[in-house]
Amino acid sequence: MRAHPIRTVAVERAPIGPSCAGRAIAAEVLALEDVPPFTRSSVDGFAVHAEDVRSARPGAIVRLTIVGEVTMGADAPRALPRGHAMRVPTGGWLPSGASAVVKKEDCSDLGDAVEINDGEGSDEHITRQGADIRRGEVLAKPGTVVTPASVGMLSGAGVSELPLFAKARVALLVTGDEIVSPGALLHAGAVRDINSLSLGATLRAMGFSLVSYERVADRKDVFEAAFARALRECDAVVISGGSSVGERDYTPQIVAAAGAPGVIVHGVRAKPGRPTMLAIVGDKPVIGLPGNPVSALVMLETLGKPILLRLYGKDDQTLPLRACLTSRLALDPRLEHLVPVALSRAERGLNASPLLGTSAQMHILGFADALVAVPEGSGPIEAGELVDAVPLSRTTSLR
Amino acid sequence: MRAHPIRTVAVERAPIGPSCAGRAIAAEVLALEDVPPFTRSSVDGFAVHAEDVRSARPGAIVRLTIVGEVTMGADAPRALPRGHAMRVPTGGWLPSGASAVVKKEDCSDLGDAVEINDGEGSDEHITRQGADIRRGEVLAKPGTVVTPASVGMLSGAGVSELPLFAKARVALLVTGDEIVSPGALLHAGAVRDINSLSLGATLRAMGFSLVSYERVADRKDVFEAAFARALRECDAVVISGGSSVGERDYTPQIVAAAGAPGVIVHGVRAKPGRPTMLAIVGDKPVIGLPGNPVSALVMLETLGKPILLRLYGKDDQTLPLRACLTSRLALDPRLEHLVPVALSRAERGLNASPLLGTSAQMHILGFADALVAVPEGSGPIEAGELVDAVPLSRTTSLR
Repeated sequence: MRAHPIRTVAVERAPIGPSCAGRAIAAEVLALEDVPPFTRSSVDGFAVHAEDVRSARPGAIVRLTIVGEVTMGADAPRALPRGHAMRVPTGGWLPSGASAVVKKEDCSDLGDAVEINDGEGSDEHITRQGADIRRGEVLAKPGTVVTPASVGMLSGAGVSELPLFAKARVALLVTGDEIVSPGALLHAGAVRDINSLSLGATLRAMGFSLVSYERVADRKDVFEAAFARALRECDAVVISGGSSVGERDYTPQIVAAAGAPGVIVHGVRAKPGRPTMLAIVGDKPVIGLPGNPVSALVMLETLGKPILLRLYGKDDQTLPLRACLTSRLALDPRLEHLVPVALSRAERGLNASPLLGTSAQMHILGFADALVAVPEGSGPIEAGELVDAVPLSRTTSLR
Repeated sequence: MRAHPIRTVAVERAPIGPSCAGRAIAAEVLALEDVPPFTRSSVDGFAVHAEDVRSARPGAIVRLTIVGEVTMGADAPRALPRGHAMRVPTGGWLPSGASAVVKKEDCSDLGDAVEINDGEGSDEHITRQGADIRRGEVLAKPGTVVTPASVGMLSGAGVSELPLFAKARVALLVTGDEIVSPGALLHAGAVRDINSLSLGATLRAMGFSLVSYERVADRKDVFEAAFARALRECDAVVISGGSSVGERDYTPQIVAAAGAPGVIVHGVRAKPGRPTMLAIVGDKPVIGLPGNPVSALVMLETLGKPILLRLYGKDDQTLPLRACLTSRLALDPRLEHLVPVALSRAERGLNASPLLGTSAQMHILGFADALVAVPEGSGPIEAGELVDAVPLSRTTSLR
């Protein structure tokens, strides 16, 4: 697909906040402030001159006069003269002149004066300005995704706006005269809509803004109009159904006719997923998925996702999980297989239980957590072997 | 905590759709319809009587008269008489009388009649009504979380509404006079707000509705009023800062005074996290986190999460990931340690790189993906050993 660039979506500067988590960074983000922004105490205690307390030991107590107190959120009231101490809280500003902080536990507070019982290591209780992050340091790179933890780091370093890719608008067109919506009458010959829900939720979990359209009737002119509208209104189009080479084979024709470079892949040697179509119209990706719900989901995750992530200028960085196979996989070596598995907690690490079966499609769909890719030409994989399971997209971490 | 029950939030019946993904199921969900809802063909071809084609072979072609065609989304136009065939698409209704479907590839279509070149296996091209899911079958149990895949399965089985726990409202109270918001002037002695962002985004990623309040000044009466309001308006309260036994030690007092059973845990023997408070007021959980951003996030994930998930009647089912430690961990055996790690792709499976350091707090926060728990009394863990890493909560799967 490299030869046919996909246009990245617009960049926006978003005020930093919890809702930035999950969004894709569009440009390098630099620290705008030192962290910590000033040299401060890392303990509750007394700011001192290190030389004044160096010799303090339980048998050789050093007594210093207290000159005031540092308040949280303010600078020190004055510089610290030799032979004196200033009360300072954890995180408090280190007064000018001070070079150490003696922990509360190592002193006796007499009110006007303090007796230092142990001065050892007191110069370690300081965090210098910029010790954690230096202003100008690169904190985030384009193509990375903001996490709950990193949005805190960025805010901590003075970043108040983030350059984020706008949420890409991905159209979902579900075709099929036989499909009826939840709650509607299930007339003879009809089946319930599955793909609007499972593919729609998956697109959201992948970080896209889902644009759902009315279900598309199996008529060439109807599909043509719906596809043209979706392509006009969205950054990418995902089509479910109508991609097989069969009775209703006009989908690839219409996509091809919509503009260059057109259909790039039609049919993949993987199971499930054979009747899958990948196209680019202008600079917008079009993913034609099989109507079969398991095939559609598997192809969206494996072939569709890396293409759609180009809308964010991103590579797919989903981490494969190491898991122990709970039953033997002996598959037709003439095809690549993508085996849906349910993950569960093992004594250590994870178990992956293959969900196979021709008629139990729903159980595959409902209980799958991840996919195990078995390349073409592979021999059987025995129960107990470790495999890489690539997790399916999820809307949140909640399990 | 078992002795002090936490009230689960209200249950609502939500129309099924992509936005149900990530929500917690509140009651058993049964299949309302058979899947498939009628016996249907699993291939494009001709519906036949199995007995008529059993002997058909390339050298012994069987010729049948075509009587009509099944349309997708409709029942068959008539019953199928012996010696006849009816065109049927993949997913089409199997006409009454038919007991097999011959694949298109195994016939020659003559228009009025069809020549069956191979009848072998044609009785396998049928999916019987209810073969996948039977009406009445249990499809989801309370405490499970709807996934993109399972929401499709549930819709497929005729479920049009789901019994879901309402999103629990979790208050986030961030305390600290020294903290300033993104974009505000960083006056002397001030530090940037981190916890509102990292804890807020984490609570959302855990499946909660985040209720953010104004930052709370370090004054007993101010905190008391803010806490009372949060407790009244929300299902749980998370407090950041003020939980250590120090100058500003009124937080535990105020929480304890708010109602029985009160503070249950104050101080945990884990690093980071020591000044953490767990309380229940009435039947609402209260989590007091340290002000230090790394400690706060780690404690929210490890101690807070299992408690907050009780709002959904759920146990924490986060799956630990097996990963290869990239550097040696030699830690104080007198404490339990929760070591933030960055995960990356290894040749097979995952690498876990420990993020340690006293002053590089921000780097820990910004680049952590998971936590490795090292129990009290553990010896060093060598580089190359496999460890269980529990992933931090994320808003979406996007990486």
